[in-house]
Amino acid sequence: MLSKSQISFIKSLHQKKYRKAHGLFIIEGIKSIVELIPSAYQIHSLYFLAQYQSLLPKLPSNIKLFEVNNAELEKISTLQAPQGILALVHIPETTAFDKSTLQNNFSLVLDGVQDPGNLGTIIRTADWFGFKNVICSLHTVEVYNPKTVQATMGSLCRVNVSYQDLPVWLKDIKLPVFGAMLNGNSLYETKWGTEGLVILGNEGQGVSDEVNILINNPVTIPRVGEAESLNVAVSAAIFCADISRNLQK
Amino acid sequence: MLSKSQISFIKSLHQKKYRKAHGLFIIEGIKSIVELIPSAYQIHSLYFLAQYQSLLPKLPSNIKLFEVNNAELEKISTLQAPQGILALVHIPETTAFDKSTLQNNFSLVLDGVQDPGNLGTIIRTADWFGFKNVICSLHTVEVYNPKTVQATMGSLCRVNVSYQDLPVWLKDIKLPVFGAMLNGNSLYETKWGTEGLVILGNEGQGVSDEVNILINNPVTIPRVGEAESLNVAVSAAIFCADISRNLQK
Repeated sequence: MLSKSQISFIKSLHQKKYRKAHGLFIIEGIKSIVELIPSAYQIHSLYFLAQYQSLLPKLPSNIKLFEVNNAELEKISTLQAPQGILALVHIPETTAFDKSTLQNNFSLVLDGVQDPGNLGTIIRTADWFGFKNVICSLHTVEVYNPKTVQATMGSLCRVNVSYQDLPVWLKDIKLPVFGAMLNGNSLYETKWGTEGLVILGNEGQGVSDEVNILINNPVTIPRVGEAESLNVAVSAAIFCADISRNLQK
Repeated sequence: MLSKSQISFIKSLHQKKYRKAHGLFIIEGIKSIVELIPSAYQIHSLYFLAQYQSLLPKLPSNIKLFEVNNAELEKISTLQAPQGILALVHIPETTAFDKSTLQNNFSLVLDGVQDPGNLGTIIRTADWFGFKNVICSLHTVEVYNPKTVQATMGSLCRVNVSYQDLPVWLKDIKLPVFGAMLNGNSLYETKWGTEGLVILGNEGQGVSDEVNILINNPVTIPRVGEAESLNVAVSAAIFCADISRNLQK
């Protein structure tokens, strides 16, 4: 049984400003939560229907547990169809980005992606292809948005997502900087090498001017039909698959 | 100025059962509507803020025009941020599927895709890569769902989307049938040839058993990292890009 104030506290975390104020975000679904437990993320509290308790592994003793009923879960859930279990998780402290983790690897760089589902899908795709880092511009959507967390399908705990002032951050990068553009060289003829960054822009505007001038290798996914553009999560995935194919040769 | 009954009529079209009953669906945004006008779709009526009238091309005289104010548009729109113009469009009569259009081409076949945004994104991707047909199982989400229409970004009027009883429909297909599976042959080693179908399954369950047995060529996108699966629109895009690369050789 949750008190009114507990319910309104959790509901406040549906909004970015309260997530920031309280340093907590929401994650839902047994699979995602079980994957999060052994990760670097720290769970604050768990809210679950009775039948979910047996599905949980042994938990650190500092996690507060609350059995809830369906009506309570519906109130606190961010989903249209709640998944039986919800966790509040501490937002980690931001630490200095270790640029050495970029070497001998490819990373995705997002310049102003706005749709939370797109960001989550990109993190999930990065995880599939073994990309360790997703670097976001300061005006990219917040990674702890519930729709983003949901769309990562658990990959949030395996991919390092950081926010950087891109035009500054990119300046002393020594790696090749590829960019997804509408007027670059063909993806299919790109020489990827073994390390680099791939920049993807905002859904409507593409890559910003300040970031654009820092791209050494503009790359285009060749168009055969008539759509004006591709969804940004789709473009990111096509780039990841092409890079991965190249690395496996 | 719209009457109460006009507003409630348009709002009813946010729901599938009323779209079906009235044979109408909603499309929003000037770009999508302008692309729709010369297509085979027939617009029933247009609702727009005053400043959008000048952006419209010459219209057939049977389209009813309604200038609306912001408050009215917010009531009838399916979007959180309405885009200034909304159209009601006649749902076309379903005609017999002409299987000859599958030849010398690749087509996507969706077996139970449930998320409307995924379906729309897949249609947009098909359009980019010049795939003419998207064939959906009867339990795939409705293409006239407003979220699907929105996610197609105008590609709805260039890609032929049809619904078929897949296990029956596939039986007399003479083309190679590829399927996106978790345990198939590597995408990067697939010999695509010049025509075929690519089957993609439901977000949670994958391809159904009845359809699975009709796949000749199971194909997997090789995984490097740890995500359990890829988003279905992402998988579809990676397949489309790989096929397109092969055709351009």
